[in-house]
Amino acid sequence: MKQLRVIKIGGNIIDDENTLAEFLDRFAELKGNKILVHGGGKLASGISEKLGIHPKLVDGRRITDADTLRVVTMVYAGYINKNLVAQLNARGCSSIGLTGADASAIISSKRNHPEIDYGYVGDIKRVNKELLIHFLHLGLTTVIAPITQDASGQLLNTNADTIASGIAAALAEEYLVDLIYSFDKPGVLRNSDDNNSLIRKIDASDYNEIKKQGGIHSGMLPKLDNAFNAIDGGVARVIIGNALELSELVDGSKGTIIENGNGN
Amino acid sequence: MKQLRVIKIGGNIIDDENTLAEFLDRFAELKGNKILVHGGGKLASGISEKLGIHPKLVDGRRITDADTLRVVTMVYAGYINKNLVAQLNARGCSSIGLTGADASAIISSKRNHPEIDYGYVGDIKRVNKELLIHFLHLGLTTVIAPITQDASGQLLNTNADTIASGIAAALAEEYLVDLIYSFDKPGVLRNSDDNNSLIRKIDASDYNEIKKQGGIHSGMLPKLDNAFNAIDGGVARVIIGNALELSELVDGSKGTIIENGNGN
Repeated sequence: MKQLRVIKIGGNIIDDENTLAEFLDRFAELKGNKILVHGGGKLASGISEKLGIHPKLVDGRRITDADTLRVVTMVYAGYINKNLVAQLNARGCSSIGLTGADASAIISSKRNHPEIDYGYVGDIKRVNKELLIHFLHLGLTTVIAPITQDASGQLLNTNADTIASGIAAALAEEYLVDLIYSFDKPGVLRNSDDNNSLIRKIDASDYNEIKKQGGIHSGMLPKLDNAFNAIDGGVARVIIGNALELSELVDGSKGTIIENGNGN
Repeated sequence: MKQLRVIKIGGNIIDDENTLAEFLDRFAELKGNKILVHGGGKLASGISEKLGIHPKLVDGRRITDADTLRVVTMVYAGYINKNLVAQLNARGCSSIGLTGADASAIISSKRNHPEIDYGYVGDIKRVNKELLIHFLHLGLTTVIAPITQDASGQLLNTNADTIASGIAAALAEEYLVDLIYSFDKPGVLRNSDDNNSLIRKIDASDYNEIKKQGGIHSGMLPKLDNAFNAIDGGVARVIIGNALELSELVDGSKGTIIENGNGN
């Protein structure tokens, strides 16, 4: 089985031009099949503010109203996505930038929550894996912006971690997939202020323990949920760690590793 | 030889939501191979203004500085392109949105003018026709935003009429290509205020006469230059006319028609 790496970079890497350039050097050097999924970064908030669009919060949760959707579509699918594509092309890594709307790469549905209306937020329903495989066969790196579309043609703001997890699982039948969540921390930490408190390996029972008893920063729980969803979907390994140590994450020498117990 | 239509919509069609929806109804209904190229519209100027970025003019010509490039990348490649893709998908016209940077679809070079530095403006050097043919074979309509990339990875603002002309000519060896410039006028007018002054046919000698003697609005001359470049490049017909009469433009019953005298 051929190998594929689905790599997600967090917004905090995108926000800093020099850090991003370093990450892209490492990403471009990485041989083999790869797909890049990017988050949003702070740029969208900054531009919203300048445009006089204030973040909408309901019960402390951020809502994507029509104005915010317009801004994130511009910033994620326009500015960030095209700059990543241009910079990867310049590094000899031939890339194509897509949202979920393009060629119906990712179909989602508007989130239907019993209590909170999140606005234009999408939950993934289907990944067009044939399209992604097609681009891999063409030798192209697909760069995915976290915007998707529902069946009626409505664009929806969609969590980039979930997109990466969904793509990794969708391609797990055809490839031996590693899903790599890269950001500005060395991995999953017991204490988010202490980079030496890294947890090197997590299995499903560790994770159940963590969810019951705490012991890691709660902000990491949705990422771990996405990680275990990918493992349940047949992904070989999920590795969480520092974007500037990409080759060490890939070879397993750094970061937090979640391995598929089924030996997929 | 199979037929292909390369259709460009002007900014003024994009600016009005209802007019755009009507155009997209007609575009989606159109059978056969098609590629859509879109202009910018007024949205980019409005957003620039709100962000405090003022249009830079040198000798009365608009310059694309770094801030403006950032805005047009967001608006053209993000907002406009993804909304067009989403709305076409919703109409059953399966679409993929690209800039020239994506999969190196269009490589340009920064304009090198002896007197004026236009800033981040690109002139087309090469169209990746294999990629565009590939998407046609997949049954996808490619929707092109007027942003390209040079060989070093620099994004460049690029005239949408020229992109449409360049794509039409690049594909003229493989397809019988009609290039359609659609906007808010019925075609090339002798008097831009009088919709009844339509010129139904223009050939190369008419055009030389017009350039020497005047007789049409000077703003139409760059579009006609692009049209004749396409004809010189082997395109069968160029048709210029009202976006809301797309099917009549396509069947030749409306608009201004420029036919290839070489019978290509």
